[in-house]
Amino acid sequence: MPKGQPNVVPQDGLTTRQRRNRPLVAVHTGVGKGKSTAAFGLALRAWNQGWPIGVFQFVKSAKWKVGEERALKVLGDSGEGGSVTWHKMGEGWSWIQRNVQDGEMSSEAAAREGWEQVKRDLAAETYRLLVLDEFAYPMHWGWVDVEEVVAVLRDRPGTQHVVITGRNAPQQLIDAADLVTEMSKVKHPMDAGQKGQKGIEW
Amino acid sequence: MPKGQPNVVPQDGLTTRQRRNRPLVAVHTGVGKGKSTAAFGLALRAWNQGWPIGVFQFVKSAKWKVGEERALKVLGDSGEGGSVTWHKMGEGWSWIQRNVQDGEMSSEAAAREGWEQVKRDLAAETYRLLVLDEFAYPMHWGWVDVEEVVAVLRDRPGTQHVVITGRNAPQQLIDAADLVTEMSKVKHPMDAGQKGQKGIEW
Repeated sequence: MPKGQPNVVPQDGLTTRQRRNRPLVAVHTGVGKGKSTAAFGLALRAWNQGWPIGVFQFVKSAKWKVGEERALKVLGDSGEGGSVTWHKMGEGWSWIQRNVQDGEMSSEAAAREGWEQVKRDLAAETYRLLVLDEFAYPMHWGWVDVEEVVAVLRDRPGTQHVVITGRNAPQQLIDAADLVTEMSKVKHPMDAGQKGQKGIEW
Repeated sequence: MPKGQPNVVPQDGLTTRQRRNRPLVAVHTGVGKGKSTAAFGLALRAWNQGWPIGVFQFVKSAKWKVGEERALKVLGDSGEGGSVTWHKMGEGWSWIQRNVQDGEMSSEAAAREGWEQVKRDLAAETYRLLVLDEFAYPMHWGWVDVEEVVAVLRDRPGTQHVVITGRNAPQQLIDAADLVTEMSKVKHPMDAGQKGQKGIEW
């Protein structure tokens, strides 16, 4: 529901308009499907507003989410909405010198490199919507410090919305977020012996 | 997870490949956010596969989801992926003669008209992915007969995936669906007095 009355009116010294436009940290977690697809669906709205969008894909495989990536790149290049910049951990991150790959960066080091770039981009206000896809995992595994993430998000300048996806979002992140949705599996085709298929899973 | 091993291998006489490509009925339900955004995120994958996509928006307001609509239209018109056809109940459905509006069609009648068109398009195999956005409501309210929906979906020809969104999806639909995700609200900005904002809610 896009419209509605809030449940409480906080005593925060903000006007309704100021409060309405406060940037959000959103988290999509849980074991069900739809966490990333909903984040990319949200990116369509941001694109329509003309916002610069940065996607950071914190997964090892470079092949995941190729459909979303191609669609958002076509949208970004159309010149009719916001720009889209897509960063993939699975390809060793675009800003890292290629010769680093000679030494095969570990997933843990790669996730940390990704987070360092997110911090730089937040400080520089490069984007207005940041999708940190599957970023819950490196926090859950202790590769990236949750307390630092929460502090950096809390102190980020300007009007930057951040969406974080992934199972097992740490409680501290959930406590710090403005919008948290849990996707639960009620039923999945794999339970009935059906494997993933094109157009649906990728 | 796009890859993985199914929990069971059913004795259904199908090869793994046949079973894998069996068309799905997916339902996104629950009171949390992300039901529609995840459906439109899924449409990005279908678009990337070059599939014709039909969206039927079963909501009264013509203004909802303008971001998703514009993005998917730009994608459909890009010629780089599948086509996109977008039908809005809020504008009286495009296929209905405009003079019908003189008599102001009720939401109930409009929802029924939408379902009749979905039936025609399923029979004609017009699309390969159908997004029936907010279609759970007219079923929940008894405007459209759930048993008929389940039978039509069960008997649909060809390879047509159907995604249905909305709170309160009827149990019969859930029983008949292949993939059901419940979006639950863990936390929402409105709980803290923050109303919806552009780029996030629309």
